[in-house]
Order: sequence, then C-alpha cells, then structure tokens
Amino acid sequence: MPPRTGAPGSPGASPIGVFDSGVGGLTVLRALIASLPGEDFLYLGDTARLPYGTKSAQTVARYSVRAAEALVKRGIKALVVACNTASASALPALRERFPELPVIGVIEPGARAACDASQSGRIAVLATEGTVRGGAYLDAILAIRPDAHVTQVAAQIFVALAEEGWSEGEAVDAVTERYLAHLDARIDTVVLGCTHFPLLAAAIARRVGPSRQVVDSAATTARAASEVLESRQLRNSPLRTGEVRLLATDSPERFARVGQRFLGSAIAERNVEAIDL
Amino acid sequence: MPPRTGAPGSPGASPIGVFDSGVGGLTVLRALIASLPGEDFLYLGDTARLPYGTKSAQTVARYSVRAAEALVKRGIKALVVACNTASASALPALRERFPELPVIGVIEPGARAACDASQSGRIAVLATEGTVRGGAYLDAILAIRPDAHVTQVAAQIFVALAEEGWSEGEAVDAVTERYLAHLDARIDTVVLGCTHFPLLAAAIARRVGPSRQVVDSAATTARAASEVLESRQLRNSPLRTGEVRLLATDSPERFARVGQRFLGSAIAERNVEAIDL
Repeated sequence: MPPRTGAPGSPGASPIGVFDSGVGGLTVLRALIASLPGEDFLYLGDTARLPYGTKSAQTVARYSVRAAEALVKRGIKALVVACNTASASALPALRERFPELPVIGVIEPGARAACDASQSGRIAVLATEGTVRGGAYLDAILAIRPDAHVTQVAAQIFVALAEEGWSEGEAVDAVTERYLAHLDARIDTVVLGCTHFPLLAAAIARRVGPSRQVVDSAATTARAASEVLESRQLRNSPLRTGEVRLLATDSPERFARVGQRFLGSAIAERNVEAIDL
Repeated sequence: MPPRTGAPGSPGASPIGVFDSGVGGLTVLRALIASLPGEDFLYLGDTARLPYGTKSAQTVARYSVRAAEALVKRGIKALVVACNTASASALPALRERFPELPVIGVIEPGARAACDASQSGRIAVLATEGTVRGGAYLDAILAIRPDAHVTQVAAQIFVALAEEGWSEGEAVDAVTERYLAHLDARIDTVVLGCTHFPLLAAAIARRVGPSRQVVDSAATTARAASEVLESRQLRNSPLRTGEVRLLATDSPERFARVGQRFLGSAIAERNVEAIDL
C-alpha cells in the first residue's frame, strides 16, 4: 500500500502546482491553502503574458502548456488551473501533454457552485472576453442543469479595476452599472467567472441586489482538488506545516505589490522568484 | 545620386515599419498616413503579449526586439515605435540590434508637443504604469525644458476603457475624475502619454477644463518620421498610392474589430495577417 500521508520521497510529498495568467489565481490559492492543510504549493503567475482574457484560445493553450511544463519540471503532484480563461481553453491540451497528472480547472467547480445556488435556473456569468467567447461556463452549467438559462457578460474592465486595487468607489460603481444595468429580473445567481472579480464582489453584490446570490469558483475548486487528491491517495499529512512558493514570469515587485490584495495577506518581493518561460 | 522618389528596388520603395503592443499604435499610424502620402506601411501589433504597460522594462525590450526582427525580415526602411511603453524601454536595444535602421519613438515627439503647448512649464503626463515607472517623459521634457515641472499620472484603466470602446459615459467620467481630481491648478498642459488615450481625449479635456491643452504624440511623431526620411533621402514619391499592411500576433478578428476605433476607418478581418513571433 502506498504511503497515505506523504512521507518524504512519496508522491504525496510533492507540492500542488497552481497556475494563472497573473495574480488573480491567488484568490484560488487562498482557498486551496485554507482547505488543504499540510500541502505545499508552487504557484506560477505568467505575468509577462497577461492578460489571457483577450487572447485567442490557441494562444492561451500554448502559453498554458509552457507554464505547466515549468511546474512539472520542478515536480508537482497535481495541477490546479486557477485561471478561468485557461481552464476554458487549455484543459484538453494540458491533459494530452501530461496524461498522468491530475489537472483541475475552475470552470466546472464554478458551474457547480452556480447550479447549487440557483433556484430559478437563470444564471448570469461575468467573465473575460475570452471566457465568454468560448462559452465554457455555458456548456458546463448546461451539462449539470440542462434546463438552465445562462446570460454571459464580458466584463473586461473589471480586470483592470481589480489590478489597480480599486474595489470600491464611484468609478467601480459606474463600471458595474454599465455592465449590469440590464440583467433579466428572473436571474437569481451571478457567477464571478474570472479570478479577478472576487475583489469587486461587494460592489457587484450591491448592484445586483440582495435577492441574488454572488458565487465564485475558489471554494468549490479547492473542494474538487481535495477530492482528486484523496481518491488518488496523494494527500500530504494535514499535521505538517505547508509551504508556499511563488513564481512569476515578470517583475517580482509588481507581483508582490498587486498580488497581496488577491492573496489576502502580505507578500514580500524576495519570496517571489522570477522565471523565464 | 540615389533616387529620391523611391523607384521600385530603391531603399525608398520599402515600407515604413510601425510597431505597437496592440491596436493603440493605430492612432499613430493614422497620423503617419495623413502626413506621408505615397508611403507604404507595415504595421505589427504584438497582441499576443499585450499590454506592455504593466510589464518590466527588460521584458518589453525583449518583446520589442523580437517584433522588430519580424518587420526587418520583411524589409522596412525605417521603424516607428508607436507605443509609449516600448519607446520608453526599448529604443536603445532596438538601435543596438539594428544600427543602420532609422528608429523613431513617440516619447521625444510627445515631449516636444507638450513643451510647445505649455506656457507655465507645468505639465501632466498621463501614461501606463510602465511608462510612468521608467520616467521617460519626465526625462524627455526636462531635456527640452529644464525648468519644467512634470507630474506623472499612471492611468492604467484608461487602456481597458479604450480597448472596450468606452469613450464616453458615466464610467469614463468617474474613472477620469478619480485619476485627475487632484491636478495642480498651475498645470496648463496634459500629455496623453499612451497611444490608447486619444480615444478618451474628449472626456479628459472636459475634466481638465478649457484652460488646459491636451496634446498627444501622433502628429509630432509623424513630423519626426518625415524629417528622418527626408534627411536620409528615403521618401517615396508622394504621387503614388500608398499601401497599408497589418500584422497581428493574435486573433485577426479582435484586431480588426477593436482596431478600427483607433485607426478611425474600417478594417476587414481578411486584411489582418496573423503571425507568430
């Protein structure tokens, strides 16, 4: 029987790789850390090529495979694709390239959270241009709940607001108003289909009103990752202290400065390693 | 004596290369076309790697050299770097890599336009994070006018607004207000130090008021390019009909759709060639 608690040298002892186009995926990393005590994490933000949200599916798949190769080379036991655009465009390419590696995206868990929350089956998905264009949330929600009605809203400027650290204020409210003024009254659930958007959750919730639930993928993705690790007997001991390492393809200074808003705790620049892909 | 009017096969017959991180540089291409009748243009938007504005100087220089190599391989007689961030970070690397090629950036012409317009010598520069961090406008303005006082404003969200095609409305006004609410009263000139910002010129001009001039680099860059071509006897005949070819490193569909707002005239998707760098 393989060791279940990840003794040094066992497959369970390797870190979980987490990949995003930039800092947005740190909202997912935060949920993973909270849900998976004892695990080590190796996070890679492809900041030199961000944003993925406006790029074509082929380009996003190519960049994602390259980023995953860098993580696999350092030794990871599973890969969480903590970027909606990459989850929408790159999962097949990643699974083909690494057939042995468990790969977990954020779209299916996000769709599940939306279906669990919705009474009416009328769901709005706020996402980047790329995610909306690919229709991945639409497909994932309809796979779970074939009678659902899904409205997609490409809300690209939310990414820039979150990166700038503008979570509140008139500018945030005005952008939110312009994107969400015409939501169908029957919609009762709004999915934040981009890892940047949780930073704007309060403003979005205010605009859509208390009768609607605002959900995101972070918690359900962490649950999905936990299930995959358990089923493959890859969980590390929850009693040990996990370690988090951060890699970025562009300036560690900016990654640390902007990233801490997404991670929800301070990041020292010296803890971010710059790598070239 | 070399032919002055660009007979076929002469150096003057080659197109002028224009390079930008994406579609913003089309505002500069528009001014070049208007100022240089008879010239052919080969425009490359590095849309697969945009935006440059949030990336480090080293990364921007590396990407710029790679893009310029693609243009030089196709044969250009001069290179206009129609991107403020790349002009701020990559001109030395480009001139070192292509010592024979005339390379014209947008910062120095933009600084000249600002100095010409300002009475008080108090100038505000609105630019991307990268351009502000590098301080290139600051240096260029002080080189022309050592007694100037320059205020830099990093206005990254303007890029997202322009890309989304939001030139007017409450959201634009609220973002403009947040960036420009605290401008020193003595500032009489505002430079649009990013090629995306001319799309927001009306909203910006309204906010800064009629006592201040809003200037950009497009017209002065076209004049600088014209002077360089004349001095090197590289002008093509102004009597011929010039041709414009467009290249993009990502989706031609998005380039055409978003780009036409910047070029100010329609772009057919079939006229945009996708290239890989």
